[in-house]
Amino acid sequence: MIISYDGTGYVGWQRQSNGISIQEALEIALSEITGDCITIHGSGRTDSGVHAKAQVAHFDTCVRMSPDKFAIALNMHLPPDIRVLYSEECDPSFHARFSAKKKQYRYSIHFGPHSDVFSRYTALQLHRYPSIELMQRAAEDVLGTHDFRAFMSTGTTIENTTRMIEESIWEKDQSFLIYSVTGTGFLYNMVRILVGTMLEIGYGKLPASALSHALFSLDRKDAGPTAPANGLILNRVIYDDFDTEEILSRAR
Amino acid sequence: MIISYDGTGYVGWQRQSNGISIQEALEIALSEITGDCITIHGSGRTDSGVHAKAQVAHFDTCVRMSPDKFAIALNMHLPPDIRVLYSEECDPSFHARFSAKKKQYRYSIHFGPHSDVFSRYTALQLHRYPSIELMQRAAEDVLGTHDFRAFMSTGTTIENTTRMIEESIWEKDQSFLIYSVTGTGFLYNMVRILVGTMLEIGYGKLPASALSHALFSLDRKDAGPTAPANGLILNRVIYDDFDTEEILSRAR
Repeated sequence: MIISYDGTGYVGWQRQSNGISIQEALEIALSEITGDCITIHGSGRTDSGVHAKAQVAHFDTCVRMSPDKFAIALNMHLPPDIRVLYSEECDPSFHARFSAKKKQYRYSIHFGPHSDVFSRYTALQLHRYPSIELMQRAAEDVLGTHDFRAFMSTGTTIENTTRMIEESIWEKDQSFLIYSVTGTGFLYNMVRILVGTMLEIGYGKLPASALSHALFSLDRKDAGPTAPANGLILNRVIYDDFDTEEILSRAR
Repeated sequence: MIISYDGTGYVGWQRQSNGISIQEALEIALSEITGDCITIHGSGRTDSGVHAKAQVAHFDTCVRMSPDKFAIALNMHLPPDIRVLYSEECDPSFHARFSAKKKQYRYSIHFGPHSDVFSRYTALQLHRYPSIELMQRAAEDVLGTHDFRAFMSTGTTIENTTRMIEESIWEKDQSFLIYSVTGTGFLYNMVRILVGTMLEIGYGKLPASALSHALFSLDRKDAGPTAPANGLILNRVIYDDFDTEEILSRAR
C-alpha cells in the first residue's frame, strides 16, 4: 500500500502507549474489514507530527478481496487525515522496510513577518531569512557516504550509522524554503538535525564548516538543534521494482 | 488591518449565536490589548468554513499604540488559525466595507482517485475530472455586468443584485483546478453557486448554456447546487488607494 497522512494528530507511525499512531489507525481499519488482527509493516517510522506523502506498508492476509479494493475499503474506515492512495498484491518476499532501497524526505519552512495559517501544520514558521547560500553549501557537505552518528538523537542505539545521501538541496518556492534529501536510509531524527544545523549555519550561529565538522567528529554536540517535526514529510520510497512517485503519477 | 484565516473552525466572519466567529475572535483579542469593547468592520462576510488570504477590517480606537504594532500585539492574543498580517492607521473616512472597490475570490478543487489529506480543509475533493473546456466557456459567461439574482441563496433579501465581474477563469495546477473571480461585489453564496453550476456543466449534468440561461431567467432553480465552503478563499480586496496583494508583497 501507498499511504498519505497528516501526522499532526498522531504519536507517529509506530504504535505507542501514549496515543494513537498511524500504524494503529490502519490496523484498526484493517481489522474492521477483515475481522482479523493483522500487523502492518511500514517502510520506516515517522515521528510524532511528521507527515507522509507516500509511506509504503505491507501486510499478510488470507482474506479474498481484489487487492486494489483494499485502498477503497480502508479509506471508508479511516479518519480523513489518513488515506490509502494505492494497494496491490506483492510477492511474498517483499518487505516494505527491508526491501526499500532509497527514501526521499522534504522539509518545508515558511518565511514571513507573520505565520502562514494555511501551512502552520506542514511547515516550520520563521520570520527572518537565513543566508540561503550558506545553507546550500552546507547541504552539499551532506552528499556522499558518511557516518551520520552526530546527526542522530542521543540515546539511540544502532550499530551501523553510515548512510549514503545522493540528493541534498534547498530550493526556494515563493515564501517557502524546501529541503529535499534522498538516501539509502536515515537515522532517528537525522533529517531534522541536519535541517537544524543548516539553519544555525544560515543564521550565522554556527560556522559554515559546522556540518562537515560534525560529520568528522561524530559528536551530537557539534551538530545543531533538532528542527520541529511539523515541517517534515516522507515524500517518496524507492524499491528495486517500483517507486511511489511513478505509481502515484500513473494512478492520478 | 489585513487578516488571514483558516475558516475551518469558525461559524464565518460575522458574529453568530451558534459558535465563535472570526470577528468575535478578533474583537476578544482587541479588548485584551486595549481594555475596550471595540467593534471591527470587515470588507464583507465570509461563510462558515470559508477562508481568507487577505480580509480587510478597520476599527476605531483612542489607544495610543504605534499602528503597525497592532498586528504583532493581536497575534499574541489570537488563536493560530487567525493572523493579522498588516496594520496601519487609516483616514477616518475609510470604511473596510463601503470603501472596497473590488474583491477576488478563489475556489480550489483537488482531483484524484482518493482525497488529498493536506488540502482536505482548503479544497473540495473530487474523484473524476469534469470537462475543463466546458467549465472555461461557462466561466466566460460570468464576465461583465449582470443581475446575479439566480446565483444568490434563496431567502436572502437584497435590492440591487447587479454586479460587475471582470475576471472569471479556471486554471489547472497539478492535481488542482482553481477558479479565480474578481468583481465589484458578490451576493450571498454567489461564488459557491457559480462553481456548483459550472461543475454540473463540466460533468454534463446541465447543458453548456445553463449558466447564461440562469443569468437571463434570474431563477435560482436554473442554477446548480451551492459548492461546499471549504474550497473558497477571499484572496484579495482592492481599494482606490491600495490593494492587499501589493501591501502583502511589499511586507514580505
